Amino acid sequence: MSMPGMQGGAARSVAHQLFAAHLVSGRMAPGEEVGLRVDQTLTQDATGTLVMQELEALGLDRVRTEVSVQYVDHNILQADERNAEDHIFLRSACRRFGLWYSKPGNGVSHPTHMQRFGIPGKTLAGSDSHTCAAGSLGMLAVGVGGLEVALAMTGQPLHLRMPHIWGVRLTGELPPWVSAKDVILEMLRRHGVKGAVDRVLEYYGPGLAGLSAMDRHVIANMGAELGATATVFPADDAVRAFLRMEGREEDFTEITAEPGAHYDLDEEIDLSTLEPLIARPSSPGNVVPVREAAGEPVSQVVVGSSANPGLRDFAVTAAMVHGRQTADGVSFDVNPTSREILQDLTRMGATFNLITAGARLHQSGCLGCIGMGQAPAVGHNSLRTFPRNFPGRSGTEEDAVWLCSPETAAASALTGVITDPRDWAAQARMSPPDLRLPERAAINTAALEPPPPPDIATGVSLERGPNISALPELDPLPDTLEGPVLLKADDNVSTDEISPAGAKALPFRSNIPKLAEFSFTRLDPDYPRRAAEAGGAHFVVGGDNYGQGSSREHAAIAPRYLGLRAVLSKSFARIHWQNLANYGVLALEFDDPGDWERIAVGDQLRLAGLHASLAPDAEPTLRVRNATQGEDYAVHHRLSPRQRQTVLAGGVIPALAEDVRR
Amino acid sequence: MSMPGMQGGAARSVAHQLFAAHLVSGRMAPGEEVGLRVDQTLTQDATGTLVMQELEALGLDRVRTEVSVQYVDHNILQADERNAEDHIFLRSACRRFGLWYSKPGNGVSHPTHMQRFGIPGKTLAGSDSHTCAAGSLGMLAVGVGGLEVALAMTGQPLHLRMPHIWGVRLTGELPPWVSAKDVILEMLRRHGVKGAVDRVLEYYGPGLAGLSAMDRHVIANMGAELGATATVFPADDAVRAFLRMEGREEDFTEITAEPGAHYDLDEEIDLSTLEPLIARPSSPGNVVPVREAAGEPVSQVVVGSSANPGLRDFAVTAAMVHGRQTADGVSFDVNPTSREILQDLTRMGATFNLITAGARLHQSGCLGCIGMGQAPAVGHNSLRTFPRNFPGRSGTEEDAVWLCSPETAAASALTGVITDPRDWAAQARMSPPDLRLPERAAINTAALEPPPPPDIATGVSLERGPNISALPELDPLPDTLEGPVLLKADDNVSTDEISPAGAKALPFRSNIPKLAEFSFTRLDPDYPRRAAEAGGAHFVVGGDNYGQGSSREHAAIAPRYLGLRAVLSKSFARIHWQNLANYGVLALEFDDPGDWERIAVGDQLRLAGLHASLAPDAEPTLRVRNATQGEDYAVHHRLSPRQRQTVLAGGVIPALAEDVRR
Repeated sequence: MSMPGMQGGAARSVAHQLFAAHLVSGRMAPGEEVGLRVDQTLTQDATGTLVMQELEALGLDRVRTEVSVQYVDHNILQADERNAEDHIFLRSACRRFGLWYSKPGNGVSHPTHMQRFGIPGKTLAGSDSHTCAAGSLGMLAVGVGGLEVALAMTGQPLHLRMPHIWGVRLTGELPPWVSAKDVILEMLRRHGVKGAVDRVLEYYGPGLAGLSAMDRHVIANMGAELGATATVFPADDAVRAFLRMEGREEDFTEITAEPGAHYDLDEEIDLSTLEPLIARPSSPGNVVPVREAAGEPVSQVVVGSSANPGLRDFAVTAAMVHGRQTADGVSFDVNPTSREILQDLTRMGATFNLITAGARLHQSGCLGCIGMGQAPAVGHNSLRTFPRNFPGRSGTEEDAVWLCSPETAAASALTGVITDPRDWAAQARMSPPDLRLPERAAINTAALEPPPPPDIATGVSLERGPNISALPELDPLPDTLEGPVLLKADDNVSTDEISPAGAKALPFRSNIPKLAEFSFTRLDPDYPRRAAEAGGAHFVVGGDNYGQGSSREHAAIAPRYLGLRAVLSKSFARIHWQNLANYGVLALEFDDPGDWERIAVGDQLRLAGLHASLAPDAEPTLRVRNATQGEDYAVHHRLSPRQRQTVLAGGVIPALAEDVRR
Repeated sequence: MSMPGMQGGAARSVAHQLFAAHLVSGRMAPGEEVGLRVDQTLTQDATGTLVMQELEALGLDRVRTEVSVQYVDHNILQADERNAEDHIFLRSACRRFGLWYSKPGNGVSHPTHMQRFGIPGKTLAGSDSHTCAAGSLGMLAVGVGGLEVALAMTGQPLHLRMPHIWGVRLTGELPPWVSAKDVILEMLRRHGVKGAVDRVLEYYGPGLAGLSAMDRHVIANMGAELGATATVFPADDAVRAFLRMEGREEDFTEITAEPGAHYDLDEEIDLSTLEPLIARPSSPGNVVPVREAAGEPVSQVVVGSSANPGLRDFAVTAAMVHGRQTADGVSFDVNPTSREILQDLTRMGATFNLITAGARLHQSGCLGCIGMGQAPAVGHNSLRTFPRNFPGRSGTEEDAVWLCSPETAAASALTGVITDPRDWAAQARMSPPDLRLPERAAINTAALEPPPPPDIATGVSLERGPNISALPELDPLPDTLEGPVLLKADDNVSTDEISPAGAKALPFRSNIPKLAEFSFTRLDPDYPRRAAEAGGAHFVVGGDNYGQGSSREHAAIAPRYLGLRAVLSKSFARIHWQNLANYGVLALEFDDPGDWERIAVGDQLRLAGLHASLAPDAEPTLRVRNATQGEDYAVHHRLSPRQRQTVLAGGVIPALAEDVRR
């Protein structure tokens, strides 16, 4: 069956049907920009506080999506008062703007969203890179920056470059002790961490029959590690069974590829040939067979996260450790996905078996997966069922984190060394366990507060703790920009250097004025002071590939808060370039990269006649006057007509606030 | 029955019997110093790493106590690699020196020690102020500084000032919805937080019959909040029943007060007159009836900690919330005491009921009780079954923490406001639940690693991560001390100002060189740099009551590491004065306090002929030469002959290391 609203022509993949059904602008040709209607949004606490400030600044009264949910799963250790204040602020914002609020402890966003809100055929935009996990249900689910999600909540379309569709045909059946995690690790083994950039992965074929919807979540979730824009599975009987188990069969719509559907690229995996795989430190792309690493000592094993969130993943772990003890010297940590899954595990007896075998059972949430606790010792191997093992992500700078399936994790926790579960099973004379999963999943929505009706919502005010600021006012671009160059950067400066993360800065992510004090401090600790002294506008000069790395929009808004109005650079990284435009900072490239040499920190620059230069049909070229050196430089911008208006208005928020309030 | 080794005379209390049976020096007259043989020791991770470094520096081969246990319960969030490295270091030290090692996640030290190791009639010294909880079993259990515990492990006696024995006669029976926590809160209501300083509390009388051994743990544990040296209960049928439940009935010895036993002070509580009580922020002494505070909104409720650790405490909470939901806007946090108790709770179905009602179920440990996570929002009320609510202890500077029973906590979590459980029960039409606690407790010692046999232990080497130093070498006191005054302090400087705690400094508590960089920085950020520049010995000048507050020995060893060899002060606080002597720093008092005025930072001081001045029979007077001002000051010390030797040797460790190695 194909989606409604489809037109005739070539047989279409599931991905094509999903794009077509939500297309509001552009043409579905790879590389062209398309605008998509967004049905659902997802935010988490680490990105959500800024999103809520953006909704406030936009003047939104009530979200215009079908469903928007704010989860609290990332930062729940509460090492000081800021966490609890974030939670109170987020809850009040949900009540004000009409979002669902998922309390701390309710669970990890991706599986919880899939269980309670996921609907085949819908689009989902989320300010978390693993949002793509919902593709397991036949959704088009995309992780994007916070402001893009805020805009989606105001009813704006999501703009994407149309990806290539990569069909992955699955055949055969997984052997014993091999599971879904090994499928995505096989994709990473074949293609590495950039293998699916600008692509949507679409899995199909007879091998799907053996993969439950939650198994598919494992595979879709880690599509992010391949760099994919999204991952898509069909909505078939396995999805129907999942929704029935979750008490929502009425939300099911069948969506499968049309017979003979065309894919831009093709791939095939015979599941019966797979074996247990493991990603060595410190990249999800460093995949080898577990047997190649067997025998390495292990000091920590962690089961959980959005990459292995299902009841099955914990149940198989519990069955393997049942009646046994984890090895001396190993910390065996279990992070339940959600309250609902923990309820089921407890009812099944699996919680008892895990605890008895030595598990440190933690609250439901992301925890160590995003470096909130569970940091391993330097150089000691930590095996995790997580999606990522980038260096230092665990909270330990010189960590040694490996990624594997729950089966490999459990076998290794029992032996104290990296162990192929097949070898452990042979030794332990154990057959693959019959997990006897319940037919109906526990449903407990008590920690999921629905949005109040509009007449109540409008009376709610945002509860700001001392550490939660409002988004700063963003004034329009003046016709003439004049000010000093406060910083000159070399090539390849990353957003981590522009606005650092880490334990010192991260707690202030809800507080732009405070966060701004960390701007550029990894390059020059004195920059924030000089910016304050300068008072008015100032410039930064960058090298090649300026703003590479993490998508954090803080790297645009925080320096902007300090007065940055224009960056002159040899070239810009794509996402940061977009974030600068979104926050009204002019990104200009030198016509002659050699001019970079001619500017010094402290030089007074001047850009005049900006309003005329940024008119929709003006040439994209400008001249910068360096009053100190007494010379001019030719520069150009790459802003679309829409973006020129945005920058002139001071950024997306002032540009759109009038529209949204209407 | 009375303890063996008793002599005739006046009928003796349990406390007197325990002191007498362990007396190795001194006379049991209140105020006189007594030396006691130590049978067992307890350390936890926040104090234990330094204790292990002390054992290493003392050259100990194997502990000389009957039982010594190292618990890991305080710092288990693992926000960076230092936690995990501490755990690895502690485990290796246990294997080297012959201690039991209780892994992270195994449980909170005090109840776990009581369950697995507590034996009536034994003495226990612990480097944790709630060590006194083991008095519930008829033990003499005392919390002391880390070096005192290290010395106990080497076979040295524990020196205490003989306390007054305060008999508290209990009559009657607790009414429904009133429990052991309300008994100790009643003591705090009557006497405040200094009510039992220099006293041992001994509970007796017919009211004991209704209090289980774990109920008594609740009362004994919080004896620390009254300032008591120890709390003692008889070893009676309730203790026998407890040990039977724990599979250790053979460890039982009956110990009760001799008929007509004399107490130095007397008190009586009729349990039937008690009602639910609560300590308001921010002192355990601010106790009022719950009904006086009823209706105050609550944003967090936490159940757990050494103050309410028993299976019963969680089971009654689970029974109250069973089939209900905690209020919107309340975070309901459950901190299981130990793996064993969590096993029992899970087997009973209580874990399921807690999760289903909304609990965030955390790993077993101290967690929020010592400010490791669970920090509340500023000004939002947090109700906790914990022992302490000192301002800021929660991790939030301007916190509002209340202390109460599990019954009051559960009722308030359900209503969202402070609620007397009797009023909640009337509304909910609920009778006090029949808890059906198991007759045999779960016993799971898999996470409790026994000490290896001596021939293996001697071959173990300490595993030091990058953040774990060895204890610095402490050289003997030279005959002449000469150097600058690097700091001059006013009256009432606390050890918090000498060696700060907090998230910045605490992670370095295993690393004296690093921790030393924080010395005195709250008074003068430049002190560590000046000390490094000075190179050799230096002086500090203090005012009245120098070194008040926390007992941390880091406040002596860290400045000593930087070169501090003598403090001249108007007067010293007792514990810091002892810590200075233990670490070989000369504490001198001005004969004329007015001389404090005459000394300036930077003055060069000189103390000559120290070896003669500190001879056992020398007069305790010295003269300090101020070369800069050209004048002399008369000063004196209060060191005992034993302590003079200690200071001359450079501290307890160099003084005793020879003895210990023998």
